[in-house]
Amino acid sequence: MELNDKLLRFDAKTLLSSNTGDISKVFEGTVDGSPAILTLHKVAFNEEYTSPSAHKVIHENDVYTSGTFLASEMIKYSLIHPATETQIKKYRKSEYVLVKETAEMYRTKTLPHALKHSPNCKWIDTIFQQADGCATPCITESKEHVLFMDKEFLICPDLKWDRVTLESLYLLVLFKDPSIYTLRELRQEHIPLLERIQQAAVEALAMHNYTTDKVKIYFHYYPTFYRAHIHISSISSSWPGTSIGKSVLLNDVIEGLKVSSTYFQDKTMEVCISKESYMYSIYSE
Amino acid sequence: MELNDKLLRFDAKTLLSSNTGDISKVFEGTVDGSPAILTLHKVAFNEEYTSPSAHKVIHENDVYTSGTFLASEMIKYSLIHPATETQIKKYRKSEYVLVKETAEMYRTKTLPHALKHSPNCKWIDTIFQQADGCATPCITESKEHVLFMDKEFLICPDLKWDRVTLESLYLLVLFKDPSIYTLRELRQEHIPLLERIQQAAVEALAMHNYTTDKVKIYFHYYPTFYRAHIHISSISSSWPGTSIGKSVLLNDVIEGLKVSSTYFQDKTMEVCISKESYMYSIYSE
Repeated sequence: MELNDKLLRFDAKTLLSSNTGDISKVFEGTVDGSPAILTLHKVAFNEEYTSPSAHKVIHENDVYTSGTFLASEMIKYSLIHPATETQIKKYRKSEYVLVKETAEMYRTKTLPHALKHSPNCKWIDTIFQQADGCATPCITESKEHVLFMDKEFLICPDLKWDRVTLESLYLLVLFKDPSIYTLRELRQEHIPLLERIQQAAVEALAMHNYTTDKVKIYFHYYPTFYRAHIHISSISSSWPGTSIGKSVLLNDVIEGLKVSSTYFQDKTMEVCISKESYMYSIYSE
Repeated sequence: MELNDKLLRFDAKTLLSSNTGDISKVFEGTVDGSPAILTLHKVAFNEEYTSPSAHKVIHENDVYTSGTFLASEMIKYSLIHPATETQIKKYRKSEYVLVKETAEMYRTKTLPHALKHSPNCKWIDTIFQQADGCATPCITESKEHVLFMDKEFLICPDLKWDRVTLESLYLLVLFKDPSIYTLRELRQEHIPLLERIQQAAVEALAMHNYTTDKVKIYFHYYPTFYRAHIHISSISSSWPGTSIGKSVLLNDVIEGLKVSSTYFQDKTMEVCISKESYMYSIYSE
């Protein structure tokens, strides 16, 4: 056994979570007596067909037959060792709930709580400073690719995207104005800015030979950080966070603002949140 | 080889589609010379940990290690034989696009086209007739379970739900009024009806010891059939069709109508549709 062969020395203790969506499971355990987290993922099928040697028929009715068989399949693993208590907590299966947030709650509870606990946005100012005056597309000092820049926003690839696979294309639009935290601060006066973003998305996508009918353009609500930003992700990929209760289409934001300047300031929002998230405490008081 | 052992006689011809989301692949092929469709699915992990005998380390950095190994895993299959050309077409991978539908397009193109090509809704009238006068919950002549009934709507389990597994709970709210085709026909006068539905959902869910903070309540747009209906599905399950561009929360419908009675009549909607769907023809003309 090699010294660095942590997987073979992993001793499983408890199943932290099991996900039927992307077919994964996560174990808490130890390697050489100290805490470790092991994640196993089933991976996509290859394109070949291999006839099974043995199988079990479960159901047969007219033209329909179904059953199961065993096959040797590739499993992807990732191991964190030594793992911290925070990491273990993060992987523990958490329950989601749908909560209703009124305009009043946003103002008095959500925003103050979020500004205290959410990640800071200094990195956004840094990108704007470093990209200032460059002709886009450009690469900043801190290696950020900037695809498009306007006086009020810029577009860059999201870190989650490998920048190669078009099927999983993911771009991010960052707002310069630090007083726009979320879609709730948007008013009719921002419609021209939002429409410029739609136009810039066309240009940024064209650099990747991509078109806007193949992406969704949306805000997250709640977002991860509280400087307004917009997600542009391919519809052919199943990025999480594009479901109702987690995101709002840019199109719907513009349509709402056209009808009422305070549409998103006033609206009661339904939000899907994890009971483990820092935001849950304002609903469980 | 048994006579009815179609799987072993399946001869693969082409890969029709491969899905990285639920990890499946579908082959077109033949059994005894006639057309057949074979679907293979990877299934959820069991809860045990079995240490792999051999594996390959791909990446190692500080506390993170990742790699792959082979394991004997269960595969679920289902076979259709003989298969029709329509069935084969249905399984062929189809491309999705996001289209914009204006109010004008809905009136002049979508609705006439949908009323001609979408499934008829006689079955809904049948449920209302059979459940008429029964004390709910009841089971109709045609074996439909009705959980809640009001003069304008009823709630029943969706066919996709096994009626047992709470994690995948799925109910359907059917409207009685045939002149409400989709959310686009809803007006301020329907708000009391929509709020009664919210209240009835609480009662129907309580019958299953379930609460509304564990479900999403939403309209599909485009819907499958053109008699207004609402989906109630568990947030812990990943039912398809809950993403932006495919559905709208009942909460958001009520909020929109409060601001403007013609909010959904007037709104430009972004809709995610398959290029294979009958609706795509109105966008590709």
